[in-house]
Amino acid sequence: MTTPSGHTSAILASKVKGTTVYDQKGDKVGHVEDVVLDKLSDRIMFAALGQGGVLGMGEKFYPVPWSMLDYNQDKGGYIIPVAQDVISKAPTYRLEDLTKNDGEFGKIRETSYNYFNIKRDW
Amino acid sequence: MTTPSGHTSAILASKVKGTTVYDQKGDKVGHVEDVVLDKLSDRIMFAALGQGGVLGMGEKFYPVPWSMLDYNQDKGGYIIPVAQDVISKAPTYRLEDLTKNDGEFGKIRETSYNYFNIKRDW
Repeated sequence: MTTPSGHTSAILASKVKGTTVYDQKGDKVGHVEDVVLDKLSDRIMFAALGQGGVLGMGEKFYPVPWSMLDYNQDKGGYIIPVAQDVISKAPTYRLEDLTKNDGEFGKIRETSYNYFNIKRDW
Repeated sequence: MTTPSGHTSAILASKVKGTTVYDQKGDKVGHVEDVVLDKLSDRIMFAALGQGGVLGMGEKFYPVPWSMLDYNQDKGGYIIPVAQDVISKAPTYRLEDLTKNDGEFGKIRETSYNYFNIKRDW
């Protein structure tokens, strides 16, 4: 998997924030607003995909399983290998809800990983 | 493990940045300058522990295995459960070296995890 720093698997969290995200066709679908880390499992859990320009009141975000994001050197952004349609119908949450409490987080995690059909190993 | 958001294991990467870090005695040892993510394994790898106020030219950082950091509600920061002395003698790197290339990253990871005697499962 390629990262913005080239032939490396390591990346700074601060560099991920703001990076443009494209669908499988290469059309822009948004940007990474933030990365949700799971402290208990030491896993990178989601990219919070945002679509607005400026963070609005009550803006909702798509929690996209981190492992779905593939950095594309030419595009200078991440590709999510699904159709735009699949992304736009994905469940959305407010940023604060993504880290609210264990129960909620567990549910969101379950919902998002199931929706995108991503293998979980927790 | 407790996080700044309370009874949750989830945390936004952007909230980690800048958080104060304390040693086992509760003395301040620095702050989290950034978080190093390992894209290949989807793991949170290091907190880059910085000690300077403003990011100086060639400033070096301590890559501290992420699993060592325990959030302390009262302190409002992370505790690394070792003596200040152990931290100050830990290997340091420039921030850009922490994500430079696979070989370097692999070596740094090995060095840091061995130094702090942290179990690795990759």
